Amino acid sequence: MSTYRIFNADDAVAYAKTYGHYAHPEQLLQADEIGDGNLNLVFKIRDAQGISRLIVKQALPYVRCVGESWPLTTDRARLEAETLLAHHRHSPEHTVRIIHYDPELAVMVQEDLSDHFIWRNQLVQGIEYPGTGQRLGNYLATVHFYTSDFYLSGREKKAQVQRFSNPEMCQITEDLFFTDPYTYHELNRYDSALAPLVDRLSANAPLRTAVAALKHQFLSHAEALLHGDIHSGSIFVAPNRLKAIDAEFGFFGPAGFDLGTAIGNLLLNHCAAPGLFTPEVAQNQQHARRTDIHELWTHYHTCFNQLVAQHANDPALAVSGYAEQFLQKVWRDSLGYAGTELIRRTIGMAPVADLLSIRDEQQRWAAESQALHLGHSLIVQAADSQHPLHHGCDALFTLLNVLPEYAAVSA
Amino acid sequence: MSTYRIFNADDAVAYAKTYGHYAHPEQLLQADEIGDGNLNLVFKIRDAQGISRLIVKQALPYVRCVGESWPLTTDRARLEAETLLAHHRHSPEHTVRIIHYDPELAVMVQEDLSDHFIWRNQLVQGIEYPGTGQRLGNYLATVHFYTSDFYLSGREKKAQVQRFSNPEMCQITEDLFFTDPYTYHELNRYDSALAPLVDRLSANAPLRTAVAALKHQFLSHAEALLHGDIHSGSIFVAPNRLKAIDAEFGFFGPAGFDLGTAIGNLLLNHCAAPGLFTPEVAQNQQHARRTDIHELWTHYHTCFNQLVAQHANDPALAVSGYAEQFLQKVWRDSLGYAGTELIRRTIGMAPVADLLSIRDEQQRWAAESQALHLGHSLIVQAADSQHPLHHGCDALFTLLNVLPEYAAVSA
Repeated sequence: MSTYRIFNADDAVAYAKTYGHYAHPEQLLQADEIGDGNLNLVFKIRDAQGISRLIVKQALPYVRCVGESWPLTTDRARLEAETLLAHHRHSPEHTVRIIHYDPELAVMVQEDLSDHFIWRNQLVQGIEYPGTGQRLGNYLATVHFYTSDFYLSGREKKAQVQRFSNPEMCQITEDLFFTDPYTYHELNRYDSALAPLVDRLSANAPLRTAVAALKHQFLSHAEALLHGDIHSGSIFVAPNRLKAIDAEFGFFGPAGFDLGTAIGNLLLNHCAAPGLFTPEVAQNQQHARRTDIHELWTHYHTCFNQLVAQHANDPALAVSGYAEQFLQKVWRDSLGYAGTELIRRTIGMAPVADLLSIRDEQQRWAAESQALHLGHSLIVQAADSQHPLHHGCDALFTLLNVLPEYAAVSA
Repeated sequence: MSTYRIFNADDAVAYAKTYGHYAHPEQLLQADEIGDGNLNLVFKIRDAQGISRLIVKQALPYVRCVGESWPLTTDRARLEAETLLAHHRHSPEHTVRIIHYDPELAVMVQEDLSDHFIWRNQLVQGIEYPGTGQRLGNYLATVHFYTSDFYLSGREKKAQVQRFSNPEMCQITEDLFFTDPYTYHELNRYDSALAPLVDRLSANAPLRTAVAALKHQFLSHAEALLHGDIHSGSIFVAPNRLKAIDAEFGFFGPAGFDLGTAIGNLLLNHCAAPGLFTPEVAQNQQHARRTDIHELWTHYHTCFNQLVAQHANDPALAVSGYAEQFLQKVWRDSLGYAGTELIRRTIGMAPVADLLSIRDEQQRWAAESQALHLGHSLIVQAADSQHPLHHGCDALFTLLNVLPEYAAVSA
């Protein structure tokens, strides 16, 4: 119906009027571009009172934060819209609603979520939304289960794997998570104070072998339709509410990658807290992050097991005991992927506000060093099939308690 | 260029003349249909001297051994031809050459291999081809490596995974290997003397859980472009030669499935030997099967490691130590899949000549019981990450030595 052109504010308003299914389209008057991510244009469509009513999001044909020198497929808008539509079908409570999308214009109209906040921004400010971990665990367990081999027939699953094949976006993850941080890539960015630690990561054979295994799984294990980028910046929160957004990295991959991305970002906030807050507030923040992780995993685990018991369609996979065995693997994978997220967000090209917001240089380095140490420990220990980390959150929290302080880690 | 119709002998000759690239097409005179498999028409195209010069193979739109009541996609001819072409590109020495194929007619012209013999038929007669295990190991390692993430870019791999998506044929494997043998399926066929053992398989929770894990991997782990059905009946042998044929089950799956199918069939012959031969010959046969398995695995292992060292393109996967770790997983998977092959060939709808050729009923039951016990042991023990079976062939051969005799197993 259309050929690609980059939208301006007027285009976005016109598009929202036509395709937004809004009760009074004539009241939609202006658009503000608010995109703060790395990849897309995002317009808030406002009415005469200035109230935001709809979101129009368009994929740019290049990486926004780098420029036109890094072209990127606009087909990611189709993949994002279809991933969110699929997730919304299974978990409408926790997935942003896509009202309309056009694959050729690489544009979509989404419900407005102005009464929500980006979770990362709240975490950096120390604002808490109790139960967010629980809601995130239920969201991920639900969308993973209904797109897994427990639920889908082999034929339907293979058709969906094809439909959600996402080579260009996956390659970004493959490079940024598993390759560049360990190979002195030109896009890596970190304080020079961290250089000795970065050198040690590259030189550590057990770490590199464990990262290779995680990358190989990411490349080859099609367990479920992942969100693919479910960090705290892709999650809208409000009291008693959670909505996942920004699914352009959606594809069929290992379930632990989504959990690990989420856990990794909670651990980054944990590492950053002493640099962001007074000691007392920092301690509360860190406790809250542990609670988030504990709720995330226990609710994921319970919800997935319940769905298998009630709705599994594959009689061979539904046998007693197998879902639990699979979930143990998911947890182990989650810890490893969390470790890769900690490392790549600390030294790679996509840093996080949690660390960047620490004004004191020494404190920032301390937090970053801790993130690197924690990432390293998680990756290597999760790869050891006998490690107590596999038995749940407790060993992870013990690990957090014994992380070295900056003076020790930089020695 | 054509619409599907079932070929008769004249059609096959005409087709071979037109598309066979044979130097003297006018000399191609007659066709004999020799298909003994479950799925296809196979014509030998002979010249005036009666010498077979080419093979014309056509996929029927149903399962031949069941009839038109079980329809089956003829797209499998495209998948077979393209799998064999891909394998031939990487391992021309050990893959049958496809001269021409037509996806709409579901027909292909292959090189004639009349100077070779189906390996299973030779094994049942006690005819040995030393070095076959070695050649099979080199074939599988080569075709697996060049279609793995070690060699292909993420983009190219994802494109190939799509191209070789094979849902209908995979579903046959999914059902026959992992579901039907454990669920009293109407197509299961076995001597009633085995019924108590079959009951025990269905009722064994650790076995069912381990089979679930193998099925889940088969459904979701796209490690390499598998042959997909590499039993001893899909392998042509001659002195110092091996050619793989019949790849209509080709798809991207876990590498251990191919190795396990091959090993499982060698173990079926091992179990059958005492019922087929005099004690002395049987002992030699069993020794030869152990040699085959040992050569298959050691040459696979060496060849894959060498290819990674020389030709891996992914820098993250090429790190020292990872290929070895991956190969340990492949070996463990191979033992599990070998176990499923032993069980499904003994009680499922596709029995093997090795067992069926045992004329004495008591001896056949003994062999079948042993195959079920061995399959069960392999599946459960391979699923235990601490089991000595993982360290190579020796523990497998020890297991063969302590398998109970029939009197004991039927008690």
